[in-house]
Amino acid sequence: MMNNNQAAYDRAITVFSPDGRLYQVEYAREAVKRGTTAVGIKCQEGVVLIVDKRINSRLLEANSIEKIFRIDEHIGVASSGLVGDARALVDRARIEAQINRVTYDEPIDVETLSKKLGDHMQTYTQFGGARPYGTALLITGISDGQFRLFETDPSGTLLEYKATGIGTGRPAVMKLFEEEYTFECTISEAIALGLKALHEATEGKFDVNTVEIGVITQKEGEFRKMSREEVASYIEQQQ
Amino acid sequence: MMNNNQAAYDRAITVFSPDGRLYQVEYAREAVKRGTTAVGIKCQEGVVLIVDKRINSRLLEANSIEKIFRIDEHIGVASSGLVGDARALVDRARIEAQINRVTYDEPIDVETLSKKLGDHMQTYTQFGGARPYGTALLITGISDGQFRLFETDPSGTLLEYKATGIGTGRPAVMKLFEEEYTFECTISEAIALGLKALHEATEGKFDVNTVEIGVITQKEGEFRKMSREEVASYIEQQQ
Amino acid sequence: MMNNNQAAYDRAITVFSPDGRLYQVEYAREAVKRGTTAVGIKCQEGVVLIVDKRINSRLLEANSIEKIFRIDEHIGVASSGLVGDARALVDRARIEAQINRVTYDEPIDVETLSKKLGDHMQTYTQFGGARPYGTALLITGISDGQFRLFETDPSGTLLEYKATGIGTGRPAVMKLFEEEYTFECTISEAIALGLKALHEATEGKFDVNTVEIGVITQKEGEFRKMSREEVASYIEQQQ
Amino acid sequence: MMNNNQAAYDRAITVFSPDGRLYQVEYAREAVKRGTTAVGIKCQEGVVLIVDKRINSRLLEANSIEKIFRIDEHIGVASSGLVGDARALVDRARIEAQINRVTYDEPIDVETLSKKLGDHMQTYTQFGGARPYGTALLITGISDGQFRLFETDPSGTLLEYKATGIGTGRPAVMKLFEEEYTFECTISEAIALGLKALHEATEGKFDVNTVEIGVITQKEGEFRKMSREEVASYIEQQQ
Amino acid sequence: MMNNNQAAYDRAITVFSPDGRLYQVEYAREAVKRGTTAVGIKCQEGVVLIVDKRINSRLLEANSIEKIFRIDEHIGVASSGLVGDARALVDRARIEAQINRVTYDEPIDVETLSKKLGDHMQTYTQFGGARPYGTALLITGISDGQFRLFETDPSGTLLEYKATGIGTGRPAVMKLFEEEYTFECTISEAIALGLKALHEATEGKFDVNTVEIGVITQKEGEFRKMSREEVASYIEQQQ
Amino acid sequence: MMNNNQAAYDRAITVFSPDGRLYQVEYAREAVKRGTTAVGIKCQEGVVLIVDKRINSRLLEANSIEKIFRIDEHIGVASSGLVGDARALVDRARIEAQINRVTYDEPIDVETLSKKLGDHMQTYTQFGGARPYGTALLITGISDGQFRLFETDPSGTLLEYKATGIGTGRPAVMKLFEEEYTFECTISEAIALGLKALHEATEGKFDVNTVEIGVITQKEGEFRKMSREEVASYIEQQQ
Amino acid sequence: MMNNNQAAYDRAITVFSPDGRLYQVEYAREAVKRGTTAVGIKCQEGVVLIVDKRINSRLLEANSIEKIFRIDEHIGVASSGLVGDARALVDRARIEAQINRVTYDEPIDVETLSKKLGDHMQTYTQFGGARPYGTALLITGISDGQFRLFETDPSGTLLEYKATGIGTGRPAVMKLFEEEYTFECTISEAIALGLKALHEATEGKFDVNTVEIGVITQKEGEFRKMSREEVASYIEQQQ
Repeated sequence: MMNNNQAAYDRAITVFSPDGRLYQVEYAREAVKRGTTAVGIKCQEGVVLIVDKRINSRLLEANSIEKIFRIDEHIGVASSGLVGDARALVDRARIEAQINRVTYDEPIDVETLSKKLGDHMQTYTQFGGARPYGTALLITGISDGQFRLFETDPSGTLLEYKATGIGTGRPAVMKLFEEEYTFECTISEAIALGLKALHEATEGKFDVNTVEIGVITQKEGEFRKMSREEVASYIEQQQ
Repeated sequence: MMNNNQAAYDRAITVFSPDGRLYQVEYAREAVKRGTTAVGIKCQEGVVLIVDKRINSRLLEANSIEKIFRIDEHIGVASSGLVGDARALVDRARIEAQINRVTYDEPIDVETLSKKLGDHMQTYTQFGGARPYGTALLITGISDGQFRLFETDPSGTLLEYKATGIGTGRPAVMKLFEEEYTFECTISEAIALGLKALHEATEGKFDVNTVEIGVITQKEGEFRKMSREEVASYIEQQQ
Repeated sequence: MMNNNQAAYDRAITVFSPDGRLYQVEYAREAVKRGTTAVGIKCQEGVVLIVDKRINSRLLEANSIEKIFRIDEHIGVASSGLVGDARALVDRARIEAQINRVTYDEPIDVETLSKKLGDHMQTYTQFGGARPYGTALLITGISDGQFRLFETDPSGTLLEYKATGIGTGRPAVMKLFEEEYTFECTISEAIALGLKALHEATEGKFDVNTVEIGVITQKEGEFRKMSREEVASYIEQQQ
Repeated sequence: MMNNNQAAYDRAITVFSPDGRLYQVEYAREAVKRGTTAVGIKCQEGVVLIVDKRINSRLLEANSIEKIFRIDEHIGVASSGLVGDARALVDRARIEAQINRVTYDEPIDVETLSKKLGDHMQTYTQFGGARPYGTALLITGISDGQFRLFETDPSGTLLEYKATGIGTGRPAVMKLFEEEYTFECTISEAIALGLKALHEATEGKFDVNTVEIGVITQKEGEFRKMSREEVASYIEQQQ
Repeated sequence: MMNNNQAAYDRAITVFSPDGRLYQVEYAREAVKRGTTAVGIKCQEGVVLIVDKRINSRLLEANSIEKIFRIDEHIGVASSGLVGDARALVDRARIEAQINRVTYDEPIDVETLSKKLGDHMQTYTQFGGARPYGTALLITGISDGQFRLFETDPSGTLLEYKATGIGTGRPAVMKLFEEEYTFECTISEAIALGLKALHEATEGKFDVNTVEIGVITQKEGEFRKMSREEVASYIEQQQ
Repeated sequence: MMNNNQAAYDRAITVFSPDGRLYQVEYAREAVKRGTTAVGIKCQEGVVLIVDKRINSRLLEANSIEKIFRIDEHIGVASSGLVGDARALVDRARIEAQINRVTYDEPIDVETLSKKLGDHMQTYTQFGGARPYGTALLITGISDGQFRLFETDPSGTLLEYKATGIGTGRPAVMKLFEEEYTFECTISEAIALGLKALHEATEGKFDVNTVEIGVITQKEGEFRKMSREEVASYIEQQQ
Repeated sequence: MMNNNQAAYDRAITVFSPDGRLYQVEYAREAVKRGTTAVGIKCQEGVVLIVDKRINSRLLEANSIEKIFRIDEHIGVASSGLVGDARALVDRARIEAQINRVTYDEPIDVETLSKKLGDHMQTYTQFGGARPYGTALLITGISDGQFRLFETDPSGTLLEYKATGIGTGRPAVMKLFEEEYTFECTISEAIALGLKALHEATEGKFDVNTVEIGVITQKEGEFRKMSREEVASYIEQQQ
């Protein structure tokens, strides 16, 4: 699957391959592909992030495993890939948001924050002495009354989506969204679509303990993580 | 057991393998798997940490070998893996706890401390010039009236458990806990379960000299290491 | 295709090959050749930049993908190659432009800015510890009443063109321009030529969602990105 | 004796082997195993350190070769392994002891000093750019009326012993101690046991010129190196 | 053409080959040999620099390609080799000239400036972490009423010539100069000789668009680049 | 003579071999073994250093070649091995001696100075980025009325001798000293023994031009290098 | 000519070979052996330095090529080997001489300056990140009424000669000097001997354009380079 030429150029981020690729960045993307599935869906009423926490032991404190993080009142993030790396990026995002509030006395723009994170990740693909982040993020929030939904990847590339997925289940999720997604729906319908996507991505192996949902709506105006009860009721409706 | 492809990517923490793995971090986990067994159990009344010190010479001062450390009044830690690395992490934990007291005049939150340690360990998986820590920790304590029990690993990943084990005996311990653990028990019953797990993990090779127990209970409110007499009485009851 | 001698000298930017080449810089150019196509055309009335954004999913927010950037009132840039690298260079360009305004109270000269970017990129081809930028830029603008159109490449080389193209479609674009380009035309005719070039470069796979156009004209005096409506009308005329 | 897999992971302290070992630290231990034999024995009356200086030329000034060092009034150290490394650690120990006296106006705790040395040695097993210390130390002294006897090794691990040995003769020494050691003896009996151990370890090749003895007793309260006359009388009794 | 011994010593500037050569410096010279041809000729009336800009597309803005640079009123430079490297050296030369004016309130001596550039280039042949400059310069100017013409190469060696050439065409140019050059001629005759040399070096492939000429004469006292009209008239005379 | 295993561990001082050796330090000792022979002899009346300067051309200024150096009034040094390294160590020794005089207003203790040099040399065996010193020193002098004679080697090990030799001739010198040396002799007899040793070590190839002698005696109280006349008279007596 | 063992140890100055050699330093000496020939001769009346500039093109400004440099009024230097390296060392020598004048208000001692240069060159043989200097120097001058003539080499070794030569012609030069040199001669006779040596070393290929001569005599008291006329008259006498 890997030829000899590839092997010669894939041990350092400071080395291009003869066809202009950065293999270490591509390998970091593999770490994301092995990660838990997370989806983000934008609709008329707001944006929803849903993740599968992939919990497989009753000894774990399910609600202590976080894959969705509130960054600021108006911004939330879902992650997939290396857990420690994600936490480091989330910490950075929170600090950037606080700096903005302290400096300008106003919430940070969602796109500005996303670019700052992307720029930071790009740095780790150009300079030696470290490795790229093995993590992708879905960044959502509201700025100037507009809902935004960005996806970063280990190269520092930033894409804005209407609906997207990261992690192991991405192919299944994207296939479903291409077919069924529509912007004109309620937040409840968006959650239903997201759970359906997660259901396919995990072959149905999820329940109220392993699903985490975060939402931001026009009505509420703030990003919040849903309570166990809310999640349970959505899963019930789903089945 | 190891193929050639693996060999090409496993000499530095700054290099991903083509399938997105960080072999050096996985190898550091092997150092933990070779370590002494430690278990942590949370119950209604509090949390208990029990370790096997694996002492095999009468010339050793048994009580000088520490695998359980009091970090602050309300926090204790058990370690497995490289001994020197564990001591370095324990030192760091104690300093973080003291800084918190000096800065905010209040005890550090158990989760905050755990994250700080995890973030520190993550750094050693992303930047060159050093190796990851070859140590796992069980961190327990009480914050806001809640008992917490975290487990770190060399990647900086942080998981919260109801009951867990690290080191050589982890598979045996986890198997027993999955079957027999219940939150609804007294601290004495938790200790009994922990000793039973240790018994299986060590094939019965332990006695009062080689077992160390640390507890924190609602009643006492502080983390403390048990006296030799207490440990002896629990081991007796066990048999 | 690659012989053994090449392989020995192509892993570091600090190493010349026996025939005096810097392979890593040449490989970085390959990253540009894999990038989306961008064209720049200068005419009597002004300069136009046109890019193909290569969008292939309806889930993407097309207008959030930027390949054309306004740097200052009088300067715009189009990029091809690694997306994260391009953003880093655009950030740098904007800061240089702002510094000039703050320091001298006047807009930065287009050539001065282009040289600053080229010098910066050259640095990454001479010093170890990082890799060259995998990005080419078209930089256009007006200084002293003159329209300028520069092209940078990963080596830091700077060339000024009347009409040029970067990215995958460059060979097709240049062939067309050599045959059909003339300075004596209106800005509308220049856009038509650019779209024709893009049509050939992408084998016709583009529409209003995937094309981005930026212009600066004598009449308007400022660089601006065209609205979706404007782009649509030009594409219509094209067909 | 060494397989290929080992060879791939044993050239740097910043690299774990696939089974979680740090070969460079293990190799540093070999330097200790090639060192001169040193023993330490704790008894009711105090602690004794005895070393074989392995002198084999009449041209050497025997009493200038030091393997036992007084660190502070109440602390002494015996070393085995690389001589230059040992001197560097002894210098460090003396400075730490002085700092403690200057800062707190009291003698440094034996365990505190031992941990400081162990922490320092651990650092050299985690960070690149240097090698681990090729030296083991026996650290003894009195704190709060208690006699302590610690052993460090190149990994920074710290163990407290009742009786122990380091260097070439360790296996012979430990075998003897396991069989014959008892805490309930006089300091003279402890010295006799230590000389017996050294006799076995060196196959009898030692005399008053090559043996160095350091003691700290309840009666004297200070660590001191024995005079040539004292050593001679103990060796005589021995034979 | 290259034997195995060479290959072993040619990857770093900090490594001598067994026969005392620095291959990386020699390879950098190859980059110069692949560069465009530039000639410099000194005569009674002054000095002339002539370069072939090797332009092969009508889309390029010919007059934007600079191979001759005015450094200060009395100093000019022609370059061959890596374009980005040349620009970096020209920037440095201009700054050195300005520093001299600011510090001593007089123009920098041509030889002093040449040595400063040569010293700077030498540094890149002795210290690791960077590569030598892949550029040669012809530096000309007037100091104390004397015309000077220096040539630098990647090793930092500095030679003063009456007439010389760098780049691809050097062998043809030097052959012609050895045969036909004379100091006793007018500046026009010097230009004619230079164009003849360029004609041979490029096999006649040059015209007014691709030739750049710089001169400094006793009469004018300043270095200046010739206008397109002047260049055209000299080329006409040539043919 | 060298097996494959050795070759794998002998290129860096920061790498132990599997049997706990530092090959680079051992190789540095080989540089000493190739050096000129120097001997040091202590007797009742003082200490003498004698070196063979190995001069083989009448064009050399024999008395400009120094292998014996006066460090301070009361301390002298003889060197063998890499000449440049020796000079660097001698410079360091002189500075240490001066610092001591300036700081404490008294001459530096011979042992203190020797340890400082040994510590400095040890550093070069533990940290990367440099190589060990390829030099051995004989350090002699008087402190507190006692004559001392120390020998350093590239590992930083420090040994005190009654009589010793370094360099090519060491085996021959040591053999002679083991047989014939006695402390109870005059300084003249010590010089005679030293010259005899040098005679054997050099197979008689030395004369007044190539021998250098330094002495410190109780009577004189200072270290001094002998005049050509003195040396000549001792050599004459010798033959 | 080179065996495999050598190849393994000759790529870095920080690595000794198993027989204690520093191959990179030896290779740097090869660069000197490929350099132009320079000779230095001391006689009753003073010292003379003579070099062959090896000029082989009439286009070169012969008198701009310097191989003999005046460092201070009383000190001159001749170089052989890498030209850029020599210039760097000459710059350093001039600065050291100036510092001495500024600090102590007197000319620097010839031996002091030579040692400073040798120490500087030694540094480049012990620390990584750079290569040794590929240059040898003859340093001459007068201090305290004495003429001195030192020779440095890439290892930093410093030797004082009555007469010596460096560069390609050294073997021929030294052979002649061993046979014919005498201190008791006039400066003119010394120059005649030097030219005879150069004649043999270059097989007679030199004339007034390619020979450079520097002298310092008791009568003049200063080092100066001879004028073209003086050199011509000596060469004439020679033939």
